[in-house]
Amino acid sequence: GFAKVDHHRKKRQGFPEIIYGEGKTTEQILAIMKAILAKKEDVLITRISKEKAEVILQKYPKLMYHELARILSYQHEPSKPRSGYISVICAGTSDLPVAEEAAVTAEVLGSNVKRIYDVGVAGIHRLFDQIEDIQSATVSIVVAGMEGALPSVVGGLVAHPVLAVPTSIGYGANFGGLSALLTMLNSCASGISVVNIDNGFGGAYNAVLIDRMVMDEGLSCF
Amino acid sequence: GFAKVDHHRKKRQGFPEIIYGEGKTTEQILAIMKAILAKKEDVLITRISKEKAEVILQKYPKLMYHELARILSYQHEPSKPRSGYISVICAGTSDLPVAEEAAVTAEVLGSNVKRIYDVGVAGIHRLFDQIEDIQSATVSIVVAGMEGALPSVVGGLVAHPVLAVPTSIGYGANFGGLSALLTMLNSCASGISVVNIDNGFGGAYNAVLIDRMVMDEGLSCF
Amino acid sequence: GFAKVDHHRKKRQGFPEIIYGEGKTTEQILAIMKAILAKKEDVLITRISKEKAEVILQKYPKLMYHELARILSYQHEPSKPRSGYISVICAGTSDLPVAEEAAVTAEVLGSNVKRIYDVGVAGIHRLFDQIEDIQSATVSIVVAGMEGALPSVVGGLVAHPVLAVPTSIGYGANFGGLSALLTMLNSCASGISVVNIDNGFGGAYNAVLIDRMVMDEGLSCF
Amino acid sequence: GFAKVDHHRKKRQGFPEIIYGEGKTTEQILAIMKAILAKKEDVLITRISKEKAEVILQKYPKLMYHELARILSYQHEPSKPRSGYISVICAGTSDLPVAEEAAVTAEVLGSNVKRIYDVGVAGIHRLFDQIEDIQSATVSIVVAGMEGALPSVVGGLVAHPVLAVPTSIGYGANFGGLSALLTMLNSCASGISVVNIDNGFGGAYNAVLIDRMVMDEGLSCF
Amino acid sequence: GFAKVDHHRKKRQGFPEIIYGEGKTTEQILAIMKAILAKKEDVLITRISKEKAEVILQKYPKLMYHELARILSYQHEPSKPRSGYISVICAGTSDLPVAEEAAVTAEVLGSNVKRIYDVGVAGIHRLFDQIEDIQSATVSIVVAGMEGALPSVVGGLVAHPVLAVPTSIGYGANFGGLSALLTMLNSCASGISVVNIDNGFGGAYNAVLIDRMVMDEGLSCF
Amino acid sequence: GFAKVDHHRKKRQGFPEIIYGEGKTTEQILAIMKAILAKKEDVLITRISKEKAEVILQKYPKLMYHELARILSYQHEPSKPRSGYISVICAGTSDLPVAEEAAVTAEVLGSNVKRIYDVGVAGIHRLFDQIEDIQSATVSIVVAGMEGALPSVVGGLVAHPVLAVPTSIGYGANFGGLSALLTMLNSCASGISVVNIDNGFGGAYNAVLIDRMVMDEGLSCF
Amino acid sequence: GFAKVDHHRKKRQGFPEIIYGEGKTTEQILAIMKAILAKKEDVLITRISKEKAEVILQKYPKLMYHELARILSYQHEPSKPRSGYISVICAGTSDLPVAEEAAVTAEVLGSNVKRIYDVGVAGIHRLFDQIEDIQSATVSIVVAGMEGALPSVVGGLVAHPVLAVPTSIGYGANFGGLSALLTMLNSCASGISVVNIDNGFGGAYNAVLIDRMVMDEGLSCF
Amino acid sequence: GFAKVDHHRKKRQGFPEIIYGEGKTTEQILAIMKAILAKKEDVLITRISKEKAEVILQKYPKLMYHELARILSYQHEPSKPRSGYISVICAGTSDLPVAEEAAVTAEVLGSNVKRIYDVGVAGIHRLFDQIEDIQSATVSIVVAGMEGALPSVVGGLVAHPVLAVPTSIGYGANFGGLSALLTMLNSCASGISVVNIDNGFGGAYNAVLIDRMVMDEGLSCF
Ligand SMILES: Nc1ncnc2c1ncn2[C@@H]1O[C@H](COP(=O)(O)O)[C@@H](O)[C@H]1O
Ligand SMILES: Nc1ncnc2c1ncn2[C@@H]1O[C@H](COP(=O)(O)O)[C@@H](O)[C@H]1O
Ligand SMILES: Nc1ncnc2c1ncn2[C@@H]1O[C@H](COP(=O)(O)O)[C@@H](O)[C@H]1O
Ligand SMILES: Nc1ncnc2c1ncn2[C@@H]1O[C@H](COP(=O)(O)O)[C@@H](O)[C@H]1O
Ligand SMILES: [Mg+2]
Ligand SMILES: [Mg+2]
Ligand SMILES: [Mg+2]
Ligand SMILES: [Mg+2]
Ligand SMILES: [Mg+2]
Ligand SMILES: [Mg+2]
Ligand SMILES: [Mg+2]
Ligand SMILES: [Mg+2]
Repeated sequence: GFAKVDHHRKKRQGFPEIIYGEGKTTEQILAIMKAILAKKEDVLITRISKEKAEVILQKYPKLMYHELARILSYQHEPSKPRSGYISVICAGTSDLPVAEEAAVTAEVLGSNVKRIYDVGVAGIHRLFDQIEDIQSATVSIVVAGMEGALPSVVGGLVAHPVLAVPTSIGYGANFGGLSALLTMLNSCASGISVVNIDNGFGGAYNAVLIDRMVMDEGLSCF
Repeated sequence: GFAKVDHHRKKRQGFPEIIYGEGKTTEQILAIMKAILAKKEDVLITRISKEKAEVILQKYPKLMYHELARILSYQHEPSKPRSGYISVICAGTSDLPVAEEAAVTAEVLGSNVKRIYDVGVAGIHRLFDQIEDIQSATVSIVVAGMEGALPSVVGGLVAHPVLAVPTSIGYGANFGGLSALLTMLNSCASGISVVNIDNGFGGAYNAVLIDRMVMDEGLSCF
Repeated sequence: GFAKVDHHRKKRQGFPEIIYGEGKTTEQILAIMKAILAKKEDVLITRISKEKAEVILQKYPKLMYHELARILSYQHEPSKPRSGYISVICAGTSDLPVAEEAAVTAEVLGSNVKRIYDVGVAGIHRLFDQIEDIQSATVSIVVAGMEGALPSVVGGLVAHPVLAVPTSIGYGANFGGLSALLTMLNSCASGISVVNIDNGFGGAYNAVLIDRMVMDEGLSCF
Repeated sequence: GFAKVDHHRKKRQGFPEIIYGEGKTTEQILAIMKAILAKKEDVLITRISKEKAEVILQKYPKLMYHELARILSYQHEPSKPRSGYISVICAGTSDLPVAEEAAVTAEVLGSNVKRIYDVGVAGIHRLFDQIEDIQSATVSIVVAGMEGALPSVVGGLVAHPVLAVPTSIGYGANFGGLSALLTMLNSCASGISVVNIDNGFGGAYNAVLIDRMVMDEGLSCF
Repeated sequence: GFAKVDHHRKKRQGFPEIIYGEGKTTEQILAIMKAILAKKEDVLITRISKEKAEVILQKYPKLMYHELARILSYQHEPSKPRSGYISVICAGTSDLPVAEEAAVTAEVLGSNVKRIYDVGVAGIHRLFDQIEDIQSATVSIVVAGMEGALPSVVGGLVAHPVLAVPTSIGYGANFGGLSALLTMLNSCASGISVVNIDNGFGGAYNAVLIDRMVMDEGLSCF
Repeated sequence: GFAKVDHHRKKRQGFPEIIYGEGKTTEQILAIMKAILAKKEDVLITRISKEKAEVILQKYPKLMYHELARILSYQHEPSKPRSGYISVICAGTSDLPVAEEAAVTAEVLGSNVKRIYDVGVAGIHRLFDQIEDIQSATVSIVVAGMEGALPSVVGGLVAHPVLAVPTSIGYGANFGGLSALLTMLNSCASGISVVNIDNGFGGAYNAVLIDRMVMDEGLSCF
Repeated sequence: GFAKVDHHRKKRQGFPEIIYGEGKTTEQILAIMKAILAKKEDVLITRISKEKAEVILQKYPKLMYHELARILSYQHEPSKPRSGYISVICAGTSDLPVAEEAAVTAEVLGSNVKRIYDVGVAGIHRLFDQIEDIQSATVSIVVAGMEGALPSVVGGLVAHPVLAVPTSIGYGANFGGLSALLTMLNSCASGISVVNIDNGFGGAYNAVLIDRMVMDEGLSCF
Repeated sequence: GFAKVDHHRKKRQGFPEIIYGEGKTTEQILAIMKAILAKKEDVLITRISKEKAEVILQKYPKLMYHELARILSYQHEPSKPRSGYISVICAGTSDLPVAEEAAVTAEVLGSNVKRIYDVGVAGIHRLFDQIEDIQSATVSIVVAGMEGALPSVVGGLVAHPVLAVPTSIGYGANFGGLSALLTMLNSCASGISVVNIDNGFGGAYNAVLIDRMVMDEGLSCF
């Protein structure tokens, strides 16, 4: 077929291949899904619109669609319980879709998530109100658009790694998320690393890799 | 001569023409200064190196050189005392030259200044330690390089206008100050306006225009 | 809920939280409005389309929609009269929506506004015809797209602060407003500070902060 | 040799090949000059430093070095007198080298030049003081750095073509002249065309092509 | 009203104000047109879609719509005949709309035009086939997208000024016309000046200013 | 003094404030060091030239200078032994200074490091020769300039997080490291997060945060 | 007519003019096709939508439409068989349209093609599985979006030229394909040259020029 | 040691590893050279300054330094004679160093070279004077700075592949070679592929890969 599903990935990396839904037809997605399910692997499809998801759900009603996150998922069995949690923090209401892409991805990959939303730096007391929950996380994902200053503030207040996710939210001189991206790359706080603009999935994947190592007893793939 | 000093400016704007020293020869600066002094106007020269300043000071020993700010100035008589003050805030030690350009400019133009330095967002308690001094200012100038997040935080905590001055401090993806500039232009805090990268002078000039209107009894130039 | 309305802002900054309508659903806007009205605070929603506004107006017919400005507003009681005015100047007919966003915002926040429109530099006599009105303002907001030269000219003619608002009007090498933005940041006139491209709201907010300090007897939030 | 001097150009275009001095060694320049002089053509070398010029002047003392313009030139016989003039206008003192590159080039290519310097838009009365001289020119070259607004103002006041020359003068968000360049390309005044950043030579060459057509009786190269 | 028509322009520049149709409503255009016609001035509207033009033509059937050029025009009396012509040259079929905007503008402003289309550098013999027509023009407008190399080649072959008009035609690394724009600004041919991307109007306006000076007996506006 | 050392950081984040040497004078560095040593905290100075380091070493001979890494450090007592290691991988010989900044930082902050250098993708067998050492690390730091493709390849082969550090090594269209930065941000491999161009320190700081959580018994700051 | 078909091209370059369909109307395409067919030359139209193709196919049913490649073609007689093949390699499923544009172009121009798809660097074993087929090709076309790392890996493993085709696939900091483009231009592997973003046609044309020279007996155009 | 010389490359690609001299110390270069010579492989060092070369030549006097090309080379035995040649074409005198880097690299790698220099498009007859030599080459390398239009013209006139090498020659809006790079990527001539700015080496390497396949009897690496 047109696609070579990377079945070996589960062995190499501990997670099966995840499907990026954007730009793929429903037919292509179904074909890839079929190959994954045939190997008894779990399914995680990101960036999939409600329209496409509904077509797929008619064929595979056991899958679950997370609308705000635009994720379609299926787990053969529930993740084994893991202690601790990842905090997913976002600056404004408009950043919710990216924050949810991160939160749902992390949950499907087996981590616990605490959501701390709409706590941008313009009203910083909102962040301080929840600082203990943030400091107690194993790792934080901080999602912000416009000037993207939130990861710098969080990074200065916690002792764990911060995954910074810039969003394209804003207008004018935000240049499609460039503004928030540069802010995060130039952060004067030290424990911050950055993923692509709007890449909630990438922030979560990195966070789960860390969370899994810290919290799990052993890790089969080593 | 080669230059047309704008003597009319004092009348139009309440301040005499200010000399931008960068890229001018000592001879050119002396010629312009002479024209200004002949009109009994005050002298303010920005972006002037120690070397050039020393040549001029030998001829005009009454001028005063502010080394860190790279400013050379002369006032025929001291500014009449003005109540209140402008707060000049900077994020890191490396932003000092720009912060001082702002602070000295504001003082020479007749305002009081309170300096609040090295209070960047990575250790935000340092800012909160001085928040009352900042909130009591008539207007704040906030100077920051790297990710330039400080004006957003200050802007959310004060009820007066914030003049944001991005600096070129940083490296890599700061692209010569572009990062801090975009951050400040996209700030989600509302009372923030921005001047050019490293333009401490511009921040101060705007702040003094505001301070003068708020604090002075009357304003001759209206 | 999903949003944390910053009710404390009125105390900290003298204005309630203002709702940025773009990218929010009508439901989200209604939820935030309800929380604001419950606190007896005034409502100001920017960047809201006619369609969304009409849905809201059916529920809350007392609100007022300013179509060109794309603003929906409600004041519990009229602003107390303030002397003086803000001049809102724009370069061309196509800049009107941004200029109106600035003018209406300023009015809702309690300032008087004088509109001086279509006076771009290509026919500069039109500006000079109204120069006295401009010079008598407490502060000016200058809105311009394409090459964005108007703030430089105005800045050289007035003794008060100029808030420069670049617009995305133009094509080709204006790169979505970048051209006007850079022009304003590099202005050789001194009393100019800049807000984001198309950010009429931001220009007005800054101008009102200044106007309020200059014109009001006292300011409760100090 | 390494270079193919375009001797045919005089016939095709009415001017001999002009030597761009930057990045060429003194030896390379001398070799090209020799080839040009052998054809009894005039010599015009732009962007040549004082050091290189002095070496060449020792061999060819009849050449003339224009220091500020960084031009070295030689004419076998004086240009035949032409009526009318080109106005060369610049915004600030720092733009002088580019303005002089334009003015001297135009003179060597046979046009009369009227210099109108230091008349930037921040003090626009200085421009109006000389507006009649500007309006009477056959064509204007307008040189400006920083925000580069001057050509827009001049373009709106004259009935002849304006050649706009952006300069790299400025700092920060001028991005090496990009700011002035974009301003000029987006000008809302209509009779303006633009050459490369700092390209005083190019502005002059275009202006002389026009001046020559308008003012000369006949033109041998048609 | 909202717009200040610059009636003085005809006196200052020899042409009435020209209407830029993009982003204006049909009502706004009609209002401005009415003011212009009331002064017995000619009408030239650029960037106006077929839909808007048809609405206007129903009210003013004497106007003429040039579809490919997207221009609507009306002349009270025909231009007085002028000798000579402007050559309008374009590189590819897709550049036609911009080339026609230039050609029609030039004709409406009173110049003769010779169209030389689809002669891009990839098949350079097509250009040489018409080189004599090009060389005999008073001035050339050269329109090109993609790499925009055509003005450099034409510029090296003619003795008159070349107005270079970059277009946004192309894809990928043409970045909306940036590629052609930079090519033209950096041309190693000397008599080339540049206008904004897709600005056929601007190229024509400059060309007509030159053509008018060279060809007309006298010029009333001097 | 001019600087506010953030002594609280050790408590908040588990590491004392680290000094960024670039742009600071030797005097400034000495003053900050003194404040840190007074609190019995360890010293880590990055981006410090040999010249400055030698001045400081004369006063404080117990400090250690790592020349290639440009780091000056002092630990009051050796780090307690930690099991496992961080792999520091680099693509080419010219990336060594950044790779060493990462490796030395990680060691000073208490982690073990395995260096795997000069294994760029153009000769990919060199990487495969050491793949087991890489896969056994707790976390990898991958340093690469030019096209920066190495993290994508490593990211696809390991089950732990990859910190990607773009370098400014290269020329032309690498635009000072932009090329490698964009490559890493757009990586199609999933467990990759990115720090600023040439920021070996940042890569190491993030890696140590992870390594410390995974390998240490308990962490006082939780 | 409006277009000058370059019939001479076949003689100069061995291929007839190829029609770029984007931005051309069906009428324009038909007119150009007619001129080409009249000369008994083959037809190759790229970037032509299904809708336009269907209109043309009704008039010329012998043409063949390649939907994924968006190509319409007609050969008067089949290409004479050529030994060897071009390998067309792509990184991900979303790059298929560009890869197919390359593959179909190469086939229509007379080369054999081996397609090796979905072998991106994140699962590099998929590439190694087919490395012998790749190494045996005469020349490779490597198509990749996002970080575009695949050509670097392939380039290090083969002894023939690699034509790298960046695609616009991706989001955020891929900036419309800029990321992949810069990666390929900065490749540290040596035998790589690059064409425009999404220019599968260009990659194929270059590859066929090479393949034709290597594989054909003689070449009439030498 | 610090470097892993890729001795396997000769087998994989038919050429030994080539040393990129920029940013390497003389010691590093000597160490790598020693490892290469120990394997009896040929030496090719690019981007090496005269100063470094002289140090190496004292130890290894048999090496040869090509000053303009900045290349140091050694061949154990002369290349076996190959028929045909590569044409190396450059636009201006200032492009010579890059053109020579290409020409010398090609010669050291075993190809014949014909140099055709200073034939830029501004005087296009110079190119036509040598067109037959160009058309008879197996492949052409075209080097150009400023607007970089030369490859488009050459590409339209030959039936073999053109390797386009943009140079950083120019100033202002050439943005360090970006202008020429974009021109070449967007060329409307079809057989053109592009390498990095100033990468004469890369152009030559690709050209030799082609030349070797076309001209050699057999190729051991297939
Ligand atoms: N048109 C506007 N442009 C920029 N910022 C705005 C605008 N309107 C409102 N705001 C700001 O956006 C903040 C609300 O953001 P959010 O929480 O996403 O609704 C408000 O507090 C305002 O300061
Ligand atoms: N200052 C300048 N800026 C841009 N182009 C110039 C300048 N001076 C001379 N030229 C052009 O550069 C060409 C010479 O290029 P070259 O062959 O490199 O010497 C001349 O024919 C002029 O058209
Ligand atoms: N997909 C494509 N991308 C870039 N260039 C193309 C493409 N298809 C055709 N071309 C070139 O575009 C030229 C035609 O341009 P035009 O005269 O606008 O049709 C052809 O001669 C081809 O060299
Ligand atoms: N002038 C050059 N420009 C770009 N790449 C080069 C150049 N010279 C050599 N190279 C490549 O750089 C590689 C060596 O990189 P390094 O390991 O850093 O020495 C060689 O294998 C060549 O493929
Ligand atoms: Mg909110
Ligand atoms: Mg500090
Ligand atoms: Mg108007
Ligand atoms: Mg001046
Ligand atoms: Mg064509
Ligand atoms: Mg190496
Ligand atoms: Mg895949
Ligand atoms: Mg030359």
